[in-house]
Amino acid sequence: MSTAYVEIICVGNELLIGKTLNTNAHWLAKKITSLGLPVRRITVVGDDLDEISSIVRESIQRKPAFIIVTGGLGPTFDDKTLEGVAKALDKDLEENKEALEMIRKTYERYVAEGRMEKFEMTPYRVKMARLPRGAKPLPNPVGTAPGVLIEHKDVSLVMLPGVPQEMMAIFEESIEPLLREISGNLTFYETSLEVRGVPESDMAPIIEEVMRDNPYVYIKSHPRISEKTHHIELHFSTTSDEQDAARRRIERAILQISEIIRVRGGRIQAIQI
Amino acid sequence: MSTAYVEIICVGNELLIGKTLNTNAHWLAKKITSLGLPVRRITVVGDDLDEISSIVRESIQRKPAFIIVTGGLGPTFDDKTLEGVAKALDKDLEENKEALEMIRKTYERYVAEGRMEKFEMTPYRVKMARLPRGAKPLPNPVGTAPGVLIEHKDVSLVMLPGVPQEMMAIFEESIEPLLREISGNLTFYETSLEVRGVPESDMAPIIEEVMRDNPYVYIKSHPRISEKTHHIELHFSTTSDEQDAARRRIERAILQISEIIRVRGGRIQAIQI
Repeated sequence: MSTAYVEIICVGNELLIGKTLNTNAHWLAKKITSLGLPVRRITVVGDDLDEISSIVRESIQRKPAFIIVTGGLGPTFDDKTLEGVAKALDKDLEENKEALEMIRKTYERYVAEGRMEKFEMTPYRVKMARLPRGAKPLPNPVGTAPGVLIEHKDVSLVMLPGVPQEMMAIFEESIEPLLREISGNLTFYETSLEVRGVPESDMAPIIEEVMRDNPYVYIKSHPRISEKTHHIELHFSTTSDEQDAARRRIERAILQISEIIRVRGGRIQAIQI
Repeated sequence: MSTAYVEIICVGNELLIGKTLNTNAHWLAKKITSLGLPVRRITVVGDDLDEISSIVRESIQRKPAFIIVTGGLGPTFDDKTLEGVAKALDKDLEENKEALEMIRKTYERYVAEGRMEKFEMTPYRVKMARLPRGAKPLPNPVGTAPGVLIEHKDVSLVMLPGVPQEMMAIFEESIEPLLREISGNLTFYETSLEVRGVPESDMAPIIEEVMRDNPYVYIKSHPRISEKTHHIELHFSTTSDEQDAARRRIERAILQISEIIRVRGGRIQAIQI
């Protein structure tokens, strides 16, 4: 089993002031997990050069296989991700011809589609093509700022725009295939049970017992607030290179825990597969 | 103006596998910002002792006024936050009498309300009262696990449960007053404008100009994907100890930017105040 893992870094003041809910981290975490790779850490920092370069440097030192950075690739003064990454890697920013060509084509398409009257390559547009030396631009099928890939020692750094549709499109087109390569055939398999009538503190020893008997299955309890009764979601997950084996493992654990819960007077309300 | 700031740490595998959207971080960030204190970093780690103790140690070294940790206070084996914090601070965990009393009273209430038949103080329930030495338990008006406050050098560490209703209730009752004390009268003031018809790369120099003329106002553009036209949300914010001054500052910036946008052929669709 691979020990390669991923870190996610999200850049944006809007996340730190609670203006925007971090759906990007959620989408990426779910996607990467489903590809069989664990996400070990998610960090949010503001649009600040020192904050960005610090977190990138710290993350590289932890040696993840991939660092995925979202946000801060656009044309405005506070889009500082590439400058921060360049600083962390001690590289210069330079105009990347391939990136510039991608940006030009997008604006030419906007003009052709009537979304803009005319188009000039202003310094603000060129800014999106100023990449750390040695970086590779990734096509953005939805917006203007290209994604960016940098191979640094054993870490692949991926920079994606903060606009969700652009982030998702570049990820699926350019990054998902790379992650599949390093994860091999691993897949993540999960199921949930809704349990009522047993307090979480009484579920605790039951979970321990069932996890001891089912060593590859991870069981986590999520208590739900409800007025009249104890209500818990039990989440079962496992990672395996064989779908059927993964499903069987989880089924076995569910069978065992269901039996114990019934004996204790609890009720299993629903199973989500 | 105070330079005190806050860091948020969220503990939970469910966040790293993308099962749960991190609404806790969003709620806390919004709340803390509205109290006039900046949030500088948000980190998510899993239910892992070393990960928890590492991030707490790293965060303390950055010297925030407050570190707010959510998740991992419950009775199950993978609730490891207090153990991780104790390890980071090099303190022992010990049974806290006040915390134990809080937990006992909650279960006694459950029995009185008919939610449980009887109640025993099992090791799993006692676990929620095992706090780092010197810690102060914070009453949980909604669930069983108390919150925890630790004063360590110049940092206040606050541990809150991961269940949103419990986290919010303890924060509002016990932490909000402490944050108000250090932020003084500072408040955060924000407004948004919806702009159509100007691409973000053309808004960039306009934003710079208006921010230069309105030095206390921060303007951030958030492009929205739309098929036919350029669509941007402009977000204006400022922090001040005087409500009226803050509002006037933002109004002045909006007036100036609106004029420029109209001249450029853009349309202002809506103003949110």
